[in-house]
Amino acid sequence: MVGRLIQTAPSAYQYPLIFKQLWHTPRVQAPDQEIVYRDLKRQTYRQTRERIGRLASALSKAGVEPGDTVGVLEWDSHRFLEAFFAIPMMAAVLQTVNVRLSPEQIAYTINHAGASTLLVNDEFVGLLEGMKGQLPNVKRMIVMSDRPAPQTGSLSFIGEYENLLAAASPDYHFPDFDENTQATTFYTTGTTGLPKGVYYSHRQLVLHTIAGLALFGMAGSQGRFSRDDVYMPITPMFHVHAWGFPWSATLAGTKQVYPGRYEPAMLVKLIKSEGVTFTHGVPTVLQMLLNAAAAAKVDLKGLKMVIGGSALPKALAKQAMEAGIDIFAGYGMSETGPLAAVSHVSSKDLSGDPDGEVEFRTRAGIAGPLVDLRIVDPDMKDIPHDGKSAGEIVLRAPWLTQGYYNNPEGSEQLWAGGYLHTSDIAVVSPGGYVHITDRIKDVIKTGGEWVSSLQIEDLISQCAGVAEAAVIGVKDDKWGERPLALVVKKPSGADDVSDAVIKEHLKVFADQGVISKYGIPGTILFIDSIPKTSVGKINKKELREQYGDM
Amino acid sequence: MVGRLIQTAPSAYQYPLIFKQLWHTPRVQAPDQEIVYRDLKRQTYRQTRERIGRLASALSKAGVEPGDTVGVLEWDSHRFLEAFFAIPMMAAVLQTVNVRLSPEQIAYTINHAGASTLLVNDEFVGLLEGMKGQLPNVKRMIVMSDRPAPQTGSLSFIGEYENLLAAASPDYHFPDFDENTQATTFYTTGTTGLPKGVYYSHRQLVLHTIAGLALFGMAGSQGRFSRDDVYMPITPMFHVHAWGFPWSATLAGTKQVYPGRYEPAMLVKLIKSEGVTFTHGVPTVLQMLLNAAAAAKVDLKGLKMVIGGSALPKALAKQAMEAGIDIFAGYGMSETGPLAAVSHVSSKDLSGDPDGEVEFRTRAGIAGPLVDLRIVDPDMKDIPHDGKSAGEIVLRAPWLTQGYYNNPEGSEQLWAGGYLHTSDIAVVSPGGYVHITDRIKDVIKTGGEWVSSLQIEDLISQCAGVAEAAVIGVKDDKWGERPLALVVKKPSGADDVSDAVIKEHLKVFADQGVISKYGIPGTILFIDSIPKTSVGKINKKELREQYGDM
Repeated sequence: MVGRLIQTAPSAYQYPLIFKQLWHTPRVQAPDQEIVYRDLKRQTYRQTRERIGRLASALSKAGVEPGDTVGVLEWDSHRFLEAFFAIPMMAAVLQTVNVRLSPEQIAYTINHAGASTLLVNDEFVGLLEGMKGQLPNVKRMIVMSDRPAPQTGSLSFIGEYENLLAAASPDYHFPDFDENTQATTFYTTGTTGLPKGVYYSHRQLVLHTIAGLALFGMAGSQGRFSRDDVYMPITPMFHVHAWGFPWSATLAGTKQVYPGRYEPAMLVKLIKSEGVTFTHGVPTVLQMLLNAAAAAKVDLKGLKMVIGGSALPKALAKQAMEAGIDIFAGYGMSETGPLAAVSHVSSKDLSGDPDGEVEFRTRAGIAGPLVDLRIVDPDMKDIPHDGKSAGEIVLRAPWLTQGYYNNPEGSEQLWAGGYLHTSDIAVVSPGGYVHITDRIKDVIKTGGEWVSSLQIEDLISQCAGVAEAAVIGVKDDKWGERPLALVVKKPSGADDVSDAVIKEHLKVFADQGVISKYGIPGTILFIDSIPKTSVGKINKKELREQYGDM
Repeated sequence: MVGRLIQTAPSAYQYPLIFKQLWHTPRVQAPDQEIVYRDLKRQTYRQTRERIGRLASALSKAGVEPGDTVGVLEWDSHRFLEAFFAIPMMAAVLQTVNVRLSPEQIAYTINHAGASTLLVNDEFVGLLEGMKGQLPNVKRMIVMSDRPAPQTGSLSFIGEYENLLAAASPDYHFPDFDENTQATTFYTTGTTGLPKGVYYSHRQLVLHTIAGLALFGMAGSQGRFSRDDVYMPITPMFHVHAWGFPWSATLAGTKQVYPGRYEPAMLVKLIKSEGVTFTHGVPTVLQMLLNAAAAAKVDLKGLKMVIGGSALPKALAKQAMEAGIDIFAGYGMSETGPLAAVSHVSSKDLSGDPDGEVEFRTRAGIAGPLVDLRIVDPDMKDIPHDGKSAGEIVLRAPWLTQGYYNNPEGSEQLWAGGYLHTSDIAVVSPGGYVHITDRIKDVIKTGGEWVSSLQIEDLISQCAGVAEAAVIGVKDDKWGERPLALVVKKPSGADDVSDAVIKEHLKVFADQGVISKYGIPGTILFIDSIPKTSVGKINKKELREQYGDM
């Protein structure tokens, strides 16, 4: 035996890390705090906690048992937040269905997860009608709607959400159970093959919740989250639990605002009218927000925003800083809870000079509490933290998915060598900042060197007149691969940009040694738009299929 | 089975919540951050982590095995911090010996904990010489000293701390093990009977560490702890792990300052020279600090200080606020880790008006994350949170001691009804603020009413010329009990205060209904000093023995 074990048999003392424990503090300290849904609904924490009890009672009455999977097809709302708690708290499994996948993929994920109950926003009735006969495990569906009379089409529902809640008891007895009980599942939006299911236990998500508050609380003067903030997600709740913030915000007792489907004008309106101070999203969302705010002449000064999902381009970050947004990057993925690292800038690195700060704000961040983040070579040997040497990021933390659901082979690969493999290539600075240089499969191998497609994209996007750029490797007999750039011009500055201008721009960096000369794309194609995945990332798989043989 | 259990067999994924995990982030993000010991020593986190490896190697070479108990007799120092990590990280048990207990009690606690190894600051050599033959389990001792040649007296030590570290390898392999392994033990300073041992597992203290950071991080504009702070304890490390802050500060990567033995001039000097911004202590320590700062003409503006252990008197809190200290109370005890509640004042209650704010700053606080804090009647029924009705505080949280060491009867009482009983009587406001009105045994039952001795003490201490006050119940044939006040006058304002002045002062509050008229003490005695326990609390047991029959 190593050490002296403390008795852990069931006893008065036992305190499992399960979701219901997140409610002790807010229910006492913030009973009158608000949860807001668009301009349609306001309710207090007290009412929210009551409705969570009602939802559990209603589901239980409908036949949902502990261990059953309940899928939710919904935009970000107070109802989704209620499901975020009620379903796991009754020891059932919450499946957050990614409604942006193709209908075939959505049906696949519902079937693969074994969901037997669905909560469905009536905007998705048409989608489900198209899946008739393809969801053999689904026993019952409940419809949710913003309309007085929900659209049900040809589907049969056991009831409407509000009616069922009104008829149910708020006093559901949420039991204690093992903290390793599964709480949630959702599917990755990997750009290769079928979506893969990841899954999390109560213990993992409770630890993620408090570690998230610790991480965002102990920040210096920048990027902090406190109970005085007003929180709104702009990463969908169906995607990695909106980064876990709905749970952290609840535990902190903050005001929360849910924007429904992401409509730029509504987002900007809610930021203004509800005083939103903290949000998060992918770079595309930030760009959309900046445009919409400019159009509506709304000031975003004082808004804090974490960017994840894709690298935060420096040009975009500077644009956000100019708009007064406290912008910074984070790092994580579906498999990692997602919290792995956040670019809280050390006070000493907060120069006040936008050009200096942007270097730190756009890095993927510093590892969060309890996160063992290494960069390693293919033999799992550590790469030095010198800001130059690159390796794959591998992780250990208390909240990483144990594997892919019903996929032992994928799970074994994911956890090879006892660490979760991210497939991201990064350098780490002596101060601990992680800088992602590429995805393993997106690295371009040319002339015996590795060229980071992300870095070339970032440099091209800094040229005047460039709206967006993607760089992929294309086969080349002599060099192995050569970079190909796909560039979208800005409508307003199209004349400023050309093949020659971009190459000249990159040559300056190559001459300075910032990039290899092999990094200058041989070919630059101007296209109308760059294809994106369902969560707004550049779809390199599609680009490679289309242009890879050029 | 409740719910769907996730596989928890040992696997690549397993991540036990053990102390070594606290070092992942700071070792990468803050390797050059400083740990300071008085004006004697400065070392970086990198060096500290190395010395932790060396200490474990040295202890292991000396024969310390997993499960063994290692006692430490030391003032707050970098060495104690190293022991805080190295001993638990090697799966041994750290006993923080309370060196302020009587020699008999110290010997009792070392024997009762079964410590076989002691780390001893040479200031305690004389103390240990007096225990010769009374410590039969102790197999080996290591001496620590600030002097070039430690004083060893007639004791035999296996070596000196620095020499042993210098000869040992920094590369100790800290193993993984069950998170329920015991990490620490220490003894309560209960004013009745023998000291009682409490004990904590790795899981409990790791959870306490991150929840502490979450609690102090998500605070609003007041009382926040961040990685930009400079931390110094003024609650001894032998007492409830200095409230766990040494671990939280390490995880946050903050600068840490250890003051050794608490000498007022040194404390003030370190606050000034090292830029200390965050500390904690009992009210007596705050008073000492204010006096010493005034004497040295040192400005304490900007210092944040949590007060616990005893109620924070309003008069003292206002004095601290006038000195520019961000002062606020916390609540916890040896049995509770100690984190239970902290009086982070809601932004809406931060009026800027000292008289208004002091009401909130002096309350025991709002329950921390994951803390299930109830006030209950003797039948465990909940008392409403109306700011008026009083009940006993009972708690559940993931880091409460499972019981008293080798004391099944005491443990059963402690956990009666599935909650830890604090023996503290409190009211809770609708906003969640806990206000301790008394200890169960200190409540004065008079004329059929319960009078809070704490409240009367607080009111008396607000009279000009009063330095300190204690109130106890004395037997009375007619009323059951009657309050007796014991008052120490200020040297400078002794003439302002008298029996009549105090009674008149209290009568105003009785007329307003703030206190019962039975709360006005029949007798007021002026005495030279009020006896304190080893951790600076008013020793009511001694007062009752001396004055209880008056």
